[in-house]
Amino acid sequence: MMKNLKITISYNGATYCGFQIQPDSITTPTIQGVCTEALTKLFKHEATVIGCGRTDAGVHAREYVFNTRTSLSIPNNGLVKALNGLLPHDIAVHTCETVDNDFHARYSAKSKEYAYLIHNGKTRNVFIQDLAYFYPRKLDFEKMRQAAELFMGEHDFSAYCKAESLEIVKAKEHGAVRQIYDFTVKYANEDCVELLVKGNGFLHNMVRILCGTLINVSEGKISLDDIRKTLSGGERKMAGVTLPACGLYLNKVVY
Amino acid sequence: MMKNLKITISYNGATYCGFQIQPDSITTPTIQGVCTEALTKLFKHEATVIGCGRTDAGVHAREYVFNTRTSLSIPNNGLVKALNGLLPHDIAVHTCETVDNDFHARYSAKSKEYAYLIHNGKTRNVFIQDLAYFYPRKLDFEKMRQAAELFMGEHDFSAYCKAESLEIVKAKEHGAVRQIYDFTVKYANEDCVELLVKGNGFLHNMVRILCGTLINVSEGKISLDDIRKTLSGGERKMAGVTLPACGLYLNKVVY
Repeated sequence: MMKNLKITISYNGATYCGFQIQPDSITTPTIQGVCTEALTKLFKHEATVIGCGRTDAGVHAREYVFNTRTSLSIPNNGLVKALNGLLPHDIAVHTCETVDNDFHARYSAKSKEYAYLIHNGKTRNVFIQDLAYFYPRKLDFEKMRQAAELFMGEHDFSAYCKAESLEIVKAKEHGAVRQIYDFTVKYANEDCVELLVKGNGFLHNMVRILCGTLINVSEGKISLDDIRKTLSGGERKMAGVTLPACGLYLNKVVY
Repeated sequence: MMKNLKITISYNGATYCGFQIQPDSITTPTIQGVCTEALTKLFKHEATVIGCGRTDAGVHAREYVFNTRTSLSIPNNGLVKALNGLLPHDIAVHTCETVDNDFHARYSAKSKEYAYLIHNGKTRNVFIQDLAYFYPRKLDFEKMRQAAELFMGEHDFSAYCKAESLEIVKAKEHGAVRQIYDFTVKYANEDCVELLVKGNGFLHNMVRILCGTLINVSEGKISLDDIRKTLSGGERKMAGVTLPACGLYLNKVVY
């Protein structure tokens, strides 16, 4: 009997070439590659890891979900322990539950939440160098919140997609239309600002461009009117910068 | 005119072989080596970095102090910026001030404060893997605090020194006698416990063994009476384990 398992992990993406397996898994380690290898060892049969989505090189995850099927008879909490023993220290397994056979980590996802962490201190913090984007200048929270509000709701986010990926996106069912449920700007602690964005789906680099646009709005380089213009299918160059991968976290996936 | 500069830095020691320069600086990068190289480049003359003390491989520092002399005429805040531009991202310069010529980072220090960070969560936290010691079992704060209190005051800490270093320590003026001013156990956040210890000086590995002893007391492996016996020059094997370097931080130096 094959069981379908829903597994939640967190990972520090600093040294990985993203989630998805690449053709050369030795020179380009990936989260999917490392997890597949560990599960194959544990299951004693070929494992397939179905992720909830891709994350780029250097991007982190607090609660990433994947599903995998096995014929191995092992209690779910035993699997968590065994898998943590097999995985490197920058990937941690938190939960494992048996789910319906038709559960699919990507297709069954209803919404996702991302966080973007900005270290807004005066000098760089050596303890979060790969974990936050260092931005030492003053941020205008009021302006950033006004911009964030404009993004909420359903829009054509063509201007907020990596230019090279837009053609593929547009060919698909929903094109570049996505819905943002919530977009908040808050202090995570004394000198770290966290941008939290929830939506039904995100285009390639979308969160990093949305957050970069908020920074550019704070700097006065982009106006709220500029944003309004981009939200009906504007071009990539009208939106803000793509912030570095190190500040981005897949926070959670809702099913 | 040579100026004597007091410079405060922080560093993430994860990839360094400790503070002190080693004979082979290419295969064994050290904080002192990297800072000396950057200052020599900036000063355009050979720089000498006098540290406030050694830290072992993998140990971190939040406010490490060193002094160095230069004939270069550069404003102190300009030096901070220039040096941050030359140093790698896991070393950050915070302040630079001109001090009396007889200021010596090590000899002028009156006391030091170390922090030991324990990640006391259920599963490992991939974002602090090199920054805290992962200890998933329950900690008995009450017992740990009672033990910490016993260490306060002046004692012969021979039992709390790396065995291989004890002979050198004993040959020096104060031998293994040190004074602990304060030793507290508190939550740094939801699932991280911070042990803070202040004293007039520390023997090799002393903080890591003191903290390891607190853990062993929490586990019931060492009693308060056992500690009392060790504090009049007991042997190393009577004290607790040496906790890993990754949890240790030189917090600050008082002059």
